[in-house]
Amino acid sequence: MATDQNKLVKEITSRDVDFAKWYTDVCKKAELMDYSDTKGFIIYRPYGYAIWEGIQQYMDKEFKRTGHENVYMPMLIPESLFMKEAEHVEGFAPETAIVTIGGKEELTERLIIRPTSEVLFCDHYSKTVSSYRDLPKKYNQWCSVVRWEKTTRPFLRGSEFLWQEGHTIHATEAEARKEVLDMLEIYKNTGRDLLAIPFVTGKKTDKEKFAGAEETYTIEALMHDGKALQSGTTHYFGTGFAKAFNITFQDKDGVLKNVHQTSWGLSTRLIGAIIMVHGDDSGLVLPPYVAPVQLMIVPIQAHKEGILEKAYELRDRLQKQGIRVKVDDSDKSPGWKFSEAEMKGIPIRLEIGPRDLEQNQCVLALRYNGEKLRVSLSDLDSELPKLFERIHQAMYDAAMENVLKNTRPALSFDEFVDIINNQGGYVKMMWCGDRACEDLIKEKTSATARCIPFEQEHLTDVCPVCGKKAKHEVYFAKAY
Amino acid sequence: MATDQNKLVKEITSRDVDFAKWYTDVCKKAELMDYSDTKGFIIYRPYGYAIWEGIQQYMDKEFKRTGHENVYMPMLIPESLFMKEAEHVEGFAPETAIVTIGGKEELTERLIIRPTSEVLFCDHYSKTVSSYRDLPKKYNQWCSVVRWEKTTRPFLRGSEFLWQEGHTIHATEAEARKEVLDMLEIYKNTGRDLLAIPFVTGKKTDKEKFAGAEETYTIEALMHDGKALQSGTTHYFGTGFAKAFNITFQDKDGVLKNVHQTSWGLSTRLIGAIIMVHGDDSGLVLPPYVAPVQLMIVPIQAHKEGILEKAYELRDRLQKQGIRVKVDDSDKSPGWKFSEAEMKGIPIRLEIGPRDLEQNQCVLALRYNGEKLRVSLSDLDSELPKLFERIHQAMYDAAMENVLKNTRPALSFDEFVDIINNQGGYVKMMWCGDRACEDLIKEKTSATARCIPFEQEHLTDVCPVCGKKAKHEVYFAKAY
Repeated sequence: MATDQNKLVKEITSRDVDFAKWYTDVCKKAELMDYSDTKGFIIYRPYGYAIWEGIQQYMDKEFKRTGHENVYMPMLIPESLFMKEAEHVEGFAPETAIVTIGGKEELTERLIIRPTSEVLFCDHYSKTVSSYRDLPKKYNQWCSVVRWEKTTRPFLRGSEFLWQEGHTIHATEAEARKEVLDMLEIYKNTGRDLLAIPFVTGKKTDKEKFAGAEETYTIEALMHDGKALQSGTTHYFGTGFAKAFNITFQDKDGVLKNVHQTSWGLSTRLIGAIIMVHGDDSGLVLPPYVAPVQLMIVPIQAHKEGILEKAYELRDRLQKQGIRVKVDDSDKSPGWKFSEAEMKGIPIRLEIGPRDLEQNQCVLALRYNGEKLRVSLSDLDSELPKLFERIHQAMYDAAMENVLKNTRPALSFDEFVDIINNQGGYVKMMWCGDRACEDLIKEKTSATARCIPFEQEHLTDVCPVCGKKAKHEVYFAKAY
Repeated sequence: MATDQNKLVKEITSRDVDFAKWYTDVCKKAELMDYSDTKGFIIYRPYGYAIWEGIQQYMDKEFKRTGHENVYMPMLIPESLFMKEAEHVEGFAPETAIVTIGGKEELTERLIIRPTSEVLFCDHYSKTVSSYRDLPKKYNQWCSVVRWEKTTRPFLRGSEFLWQEGHTIHATEAEARKEVLDMLEIYKNTGRDLLAIPFVTGKKTDKEKFAGAEETYTIEALMHDGKALQSGTTHYFGTGFAKAFNITFQDKDGVLKNVHQTSWGLSTRLIGAIIMVHGDDSGLVLPPYVAPVQLMIVPIQAHKEGILEKAYELRDRLQKQGIRVKVDDSDKSPGWKFSEAEMKGIPIRLEIGPRDLEQNQCVLALRYNGEKLRVSLSDLDSELPKLFERIHQAMYDAAMENVLKNTRPALSFDEFVDIINNQGGYVKMMWCGDRACEDLIKEKTSATARCIPFEQEHLTDVCPVCGKKAKHEVYFAKAY
């Protein structure tokens, strides 16, 4: 058993030896993804895709609960349409994939594979909205987008990724601004309630905001290696796009006005966040509510009478309760099965053998901390939901502790550089608001402003970089 | 009220005056879709997309119940990979969209937007499967595909459509053949249980089968205008792709073998089928189980005390029961609301006014036959599920009656031509099995072989076209 187990585990690099290598090892060995023949494009394998489906189901319900409707826009955008909003073009044009041939013929107008769909929504809205009665429109789309990336990493940066993009238009600025913050709240709660990831939330600096947005808000997560991961953003556009695309409506007062617009998106990057926040040297560790398999039943001495039958009976019983259960009835050894379940981060492993059967009990092994419990089979139905809740909370707390432990104030720029280079994590520092200081920080340390947090502390009176009056407290970090 | 109603209804062409125009009118007026600036690509508006979501949810559950897993493959296929299976290339190459520029640079290898993903699945399988232990692999993908079409019609034929594509590999021919028929059965049952559409099922002739398949099976639906619509297909590939892509496994007997492969797909075409099977001159008529809104509550004299409150109370109560309910609380007149609910094909409209409230009752108007019922508010919870079941069954029966009435045998080719040209519908005729006769039929009548039905009748000893010995009974029809 031990040999088996070591064999599989040994195949992944230790997290503290080479974090980048450990990450791709987990992606591959947990069978989340595979590389494809299309350079920079990955294959989402069943287990990885199932995690995304879990996120989708959860968020889609939240979007619908808050009055959003799903739509589907074309995958291809005529170049002339794409070019209508200047800042947007500048931001996205360098990384587009362009179709020039269709049905064996050179196209008269080139078509861009959507890197994001603002312009398509704008065009549709401009044609379908005319009165305040038509507002708000709160649309969302689940799709994939293509952005030509030079260096790629599974889930974190790829030439194609899966995401949702929300696009809404409103009669008033206040309503649009509320939408942007409401959706950020939903994103943040998804971290808290589904992924067991505490997000730091706040506003992006102008340098880091979305191409074409007036304001961008973000949820930032801290990975085990001390780097931050931007995990979702929401944008307030003001009337910029509305003016470029002529989206107008006649208001109650009879006046023709431009709509106020938002967009917000969240992607399969979150799978990367789950891996790098919770994973360990045995592989993936999944929080129970997003785990495709929450409980893996491993029969011990499966050939003995009644063992396999009991395993199936338990599975059927627990499935009826809504728990996602599987029985590993393959012809592998139990030790091998244990390692596989560990690699895949299945929250609880249930072992049942002849002696357990006699005593009407089983062993539960918790993936996140290795704890083992003996539980009566009669108590299983009531114990498991409580255990899932406990595991989820403990994983969230551990992640939160990591954030708190690795968030440090810097009162001088020297201190800032020292922390960034030697400790990592978030560094909180006051900032004058000038792009020049932000650029200098990036140049010297490669750290970027992750966000201007909603809850502002006052650390120093001046910006430690330039000595001018401080405007905001900012969270800086090296980031993916 | 009457004026309002007529205004909206008059905007669509009558079904029997110009079926094609009626169809696009319904697509637009029921707000199912809109045209986009990308030629040949449509926008799936919230109401149209919600119907697709209903189909997705239903089928996804069926796929998972039968052991299939969802994955996501790249949107773009390197040209060299695409070219590996000759028949497949021949079938799809003429209608591909090709990316030649990425990140502002000319690509060294052109990339094809997937028209279907066989080659990607093959490539992945060839890399991940090595033993009988790895089999079967039963994968499915929900995505959009691009096929460059010269003439397009909403949902029926477009340059991009949404679909699911299943791709499975098996150790034995028998298992793969069973899969192909099992999935066809699931498709057929989706018609019967969700869409209220009776499908004729059978095998495609060689001329009509999928590029690269040994055998293709189909579900065919009959539209109101007497034309058939291929609504879903399943394919048995044998070992053709496996040989081209070198997908091998070591079997239990130690011998290296090629896998047996299948694929099967079903698309947003089904929305077109729903429209053309059930719709009428007032617009869309949706079967209740796939309707995004099953019940629309229209308050009468909504300003009077208690009316709107009661409407909301009913909505909340019925939603808890799992019924998809909305209240139309807009400031439009009731007549206008009635017309809109009719245009959108909402199965039941619930009217409630002051007098109803006094008598603790409401009026239910059934969309499919115009029937009106007075129902006590206390009985609503138990009555509605029964009504949905009754409506669904009646719609299915009516569609089935239309199929039976419009399926006619032809004992001679003259008779065949006469029926096809003057009556439409399916014409059953014996066939020798030769491509030449099939070609001649198409040339003379534009009808095509829809399928060789599973239940074979014996109509004549010889093929009425050429006089040679008859091999199969075939269903012919003009088709979309």
